[in-house]
Amino acid sequence: MERVTAKYYIETPLDLEKSAQVLAGEQSSGTFIAVPGETEELKQRFAARVENITLMDVADSPAIPGVLSSGGKYQRAMIEVSWSVENFGYNLPVLVSTLQGNLYELTQFTGLKLMDLELPASYANAYKGPKFGIEGCRKLTGVYGRPLIGTIIKPSIGMTPEQTAELVNTLAKAGIDFVKDDELLGSSANSPFDMRVDAVMDVINRHADQTGKKVMYAFNISDDIDRMQRNYEKVLQSGGTSVMISLNSVGLSGVKKIGDMGELAIHGHRNGWGMLNRHPLLGIEFPAYQKLWRLAGVDQIHVNGIQNKFWESDDSVVKSIEACLTPLLGGYSVLPVVSSGQWGGQAPETYRRTKTVDLLYMAGGGIMAHPDGPAGGVVALQQAWQAAVDGLSVAEAASKYLEFGHSVSVFGKK
Amino acid sequence: MERVTAKYYIETPLDLEKSAQVLAGEQSSGTFIAVPGETEELKQRFAARVENITLMDVADSPAIPGVLSSGGKYQRAMIEVSWSVENFGYNLPVLVSTLQGNLYELTQFTGLKLMDLELPASYANAYKGPKFGIEGCRKLTGVYGRPLIGTIIKPSIGMTPEQTAELVNTLAKAGIDFVKDDELLGSSANSPFDMRVDAVMDVINRHADQTGKKVMYAFNISDDIDRMQRNYEKVLQSGGTSVMISLNSVGLSGVKKIGDMGELAIHGHRNGWGMLNRHPLLGIEFPAYQKLWRLAGVDQIHVNGIQNKFWESDDSVVKSIEACLTPLLGGYSVLPVVSSGQWGGQAPETYRRTKTVDLLYMAGGGIMAHPDGPAGGVVALQQAWQAAVDGLSVAEAASKYLEFGHSVSVFGKK
Repeated sequence: MERVTAKYYIETPLDLEKSAQVLAGEQSSGTFIAVPGETEELKQRFAARVENITLMDVADSPAIPGVLSSGGKYQRAMIEVSWSVENFGYNLPVLVSTLQGNLYELTQFTGLKLMDLELPASYANAYKGPKFGIEGCRKLTGVYGRPLIGTIIKPSIGMTPEQTAELVNTLAKAGIDFVKDDELLGSSANSPFDMRVDAVMDVINRHADQTGKKVMYAFNISDDIDRMQRNYEKVLQSGGTSVMISLNSVGLSGVKKIGDMGELAIHGHRNGWGMLNRHPLLGIEFPAYQKLWRLAGVDQIHVNGIQNKFWESDDSVVKSIEACLTPLLGGYSVLPVVSSGQWGGQAPETYRRTKTVDLLYMAGGGIMAHPDGPAGGVVALQQAWQAAVDGLSVAEAASKYLEFGHSVSVFGKK
Repeated sequence: MERVTAKYYIETPLDLEKSAQVLAGEQSSGTFIAVPGETEELKQRFAARVENITLMDVADSPAIPGVLSSGGKYQRAMIEVSWSVENFGYNLPVLVSTLQGNLYELTQFTGLKLMDLELPASYANAYKGPKFGIEGCRKLTGVYGRPLIGTIIKPSIGMTPEQTAELVNTLAKAGIDFVKDDELLGSSANSPFDMRVDAVMDVINRHADQTGKKVMYAFNISDDIDRMQRNYEKVLQSGGTSVMISLNSVGLSGVKKIGDMGELAIHGHRNGWGMLNRHPLLGIEFPAYQKLWRLAGVDQIHVNGIQNKFWESDDSVVKSIEACLTPLLGGYSVLPVVSSGQWGGQAPETYRRTKTVDLLYMAGGGIMAHPDGPAGGVVALQQAWQAAVDGLSVAEAASKYLEFGHSVSVFGKK
């Protein structure tokens, strides 16, 4: 029988093997005392199995504060646990409850993080996954051989549909590939959803008629299920090609419901991610996280960026990009969305470390506040990526390219 | 204009006032550099406002490891931030993205936890909320003046529908009020959902016909939206009164979709909660968390239990029960579900600290492994609560009540 395997980074002051067995028991057949009906046969078939334990480190104090001191040492280990597919079938919420449920509550652990998971081949028959992925998003935007260049409408909230459309007009003329709502903007008092779609798509459609290039705009439809479906249809009928969903805020079942509609590229925003990931020994790592959302049908997913404005290290960002570019069950292509404080200066390092142009590369202020205006900002980003692929340094690219040089003179001083 | 106010516990090595302003900026109109269109008028209307900052403590090391050392001190403070309702209207996912979005990523903070939130009165017009709540669940089960006594089918996974129904039969005869699926069980290889509903409801309906008392069984419908709706209808048509949803696994939009159906009591399981809450300076506290789920229509929500088998302190559990029993916008009644290692011995302390019997009091092994059998287990729990309300100690209750005495002799030795 096929099995799902999860890898955890754990910390425990107790016996490592016994603690791992408690986790496996709690997440398959456990209770605090033996009950009638718990036969050996049942256990064989449905019990989670500890597959592997690798001691990594020993610490003097617990990773999560506030727990009782053992007076001893805290062992840190990678463990692998597996479950039969018979336990949950093809049900993502129950899979998540199995992999990320009560186990975080166990006193046996003073730290626990889900690092990765392996899904059996039959999952590919059960989940449609992303309709567009990397190739589909390239086709929708007509961008090949370089990253899609995108930006976020800022200020995050407060602009009218007309102001937004005017900005989109400027950006479209500047040659932008992709624009998105901020995750804080759904339908605000001065930017009702429908009015924004009408105003923005009027600009985008007009521009597409003239140039043959349709800017992809990810409208933030995050909301109740009914309103997400309604707003999705509105975008579709207006000629749009993408919608954005805040993954953690909407949740897995809601995102899958929209992903399964299969007519627009789903831009997956991971806001709230820091809560799930920022502690090194609590929560979930991106390689596991992104697999769940790919199954649910997300076409684009945020991975932060090199030298970002947030807390995350470059190593972690690189690992996230690699995770997205690794096929899942032979496919489930997802486009990594690089953003946060990006302005082009990070392109050489991003390319050096990932060797890919299969990215949606997002700059906010880096485009909108470019000294030559947004058009200069877009051109500068294209130049930065050409330079990156050609192996130029930031300084070399700044000498070669006028607009990128201006970027460096303004944003390089941060 | 009405505002939503959030209270955060934060830690920062930087200027407290400036850091709070960064949070407010990031969660309303922020980008790393000023952009055209960001007028003073817009800021006035849509900017988040820092309402209050109270320094609580100063630490020598950061709460979240792995951040750059400031070489200085880490100030811990409670801060209050508010947003105009105009920013998001009545949209729970966008509200969550605002209150719990990118702010966890900010380098200004070495710890950040959402402690509570205050919603304006108009939210009561926008959200149906729990259809049943405390009074509705009492009416459905016919239990008044004491906690509803419940249990979880164990082993968590592996029993056939017939075995489950047989157990439910035993429990119904024993006088149980409530039974639930384990959160690990949706539709397993040997317990397909429909077959389990048929087998269990046959027993429950037969028992109800004979005695007039219908046991509430919370079938775990956590799944895709379509299958949740389908399974909800199956339970409804079979005469059931409740369904269970794993809140974190399904997500806010999915839960609200089911909650809005309004015909069955929604049992909200919070598995995965430790990931969101176990660190004292990361994630979310229960007073904030439960408000979101009450708006989404959850009738019953897990709060762990006194002297539980998990890591959580009794103080925290008491605070969670109090949060549930505090009216939200004048109502939104939700029944706190006490569980985890409960066997009746915790009833006196639970009552002493909360002074309420408005609980769903769940015992697993405490009922199923009672020396007099499940019937003895149920009676022992009823006795424990009568004793608790009468102000008896565990020892006094054990002398007075036979079955509870047997509980003490077995479970009291743990």
